[in-house]
Amino acid sequence: MADDNPSPALQTALAYHRAWTSGDLDGAMAHVADDIFCRAPDGDITGKDAYRDYLGEFTQIMTGLTDVAVFGDEEHALLFYYPHTVVTSTAPAAEHFIIRDRKIVESLLVFDRLSFAPPQEQ
Amino acid sequence: MADDNPSPALQTALAYHRAWTSGDLDGAMAHVADDIFCRAPDGDITGKDAYRDYLGEFTQIMTGLTDVAVFGDEEHALLFYYPHTVVTSTAPAAEHFIIRDRKIVESLLVFDRLSFAPPQEQ
Repeated sequence: MADDNPSPALQTALAYHRAWTSGDLDGAMAHVADDIFCRAPDGDITGKDAYRDYLGEFTQIMTGLTDVAVFGDEEHALLFYYPHTVVTSTAPAAEHFIIRDRKIVESLLVFDRLSFAPPQEQ
Repeated sequence: MADDNPSPALQTALAYHRAWTSGDLDGAMAHVADDIFCRAPDGDITGKDAYRDYLGEFTQIMTGLTDVAVFGDEEHALLFYYPHTVVTSTAPAAEHFIIRDRKIVESLLVFDRLSFAPPQEQ
């Protein structure tokens, strides 16, 4: 982890990150703009309702978390971490956020789908 | 992109990044430590020779680049970008580096293998 004095954008990203990775979907969504655009490995997602559904699926398979790094500036935040699932705890994920008025308006999310697939699909 | 005043670690990461993404494999490897450890989606890689082989394969399929964000501190750098290939220019990659004595000693690399696979494998 880095950044002992997080920017407001990074504060928002971290509050969102801590909420969803601990299973608090409502808490996480409080930091998300109504018109969020998210680019995820399995497709683009537009709007808060669709994004909540997508994030909710992740929340259900999450068993733990190892944070690697966080950085941010006035309007952006970048997180790098290992989401733990029953399948893996050594496949990283990264997210780049654009944050305006304390809400996440854009998320670029990258992880390797194959690393998180059930063993028979690998 | 961010960070108009990059830390020495970020300067090293950016020099490496600019070199390999423009096809200059030798230039890139000048910034890599002999005992580099890299965690990539398809496995862990140890040592400069193995890493050069791995990076060389990427260099050959690279057709362009869109940078999204760069951040760094004293010892770490984090890059987020779209590598372009003939298959995709909208699948992001992220790298987290640990840099000591101006050399990359650790790289955590994340991208979605399926997004970069030839269409028939998707």
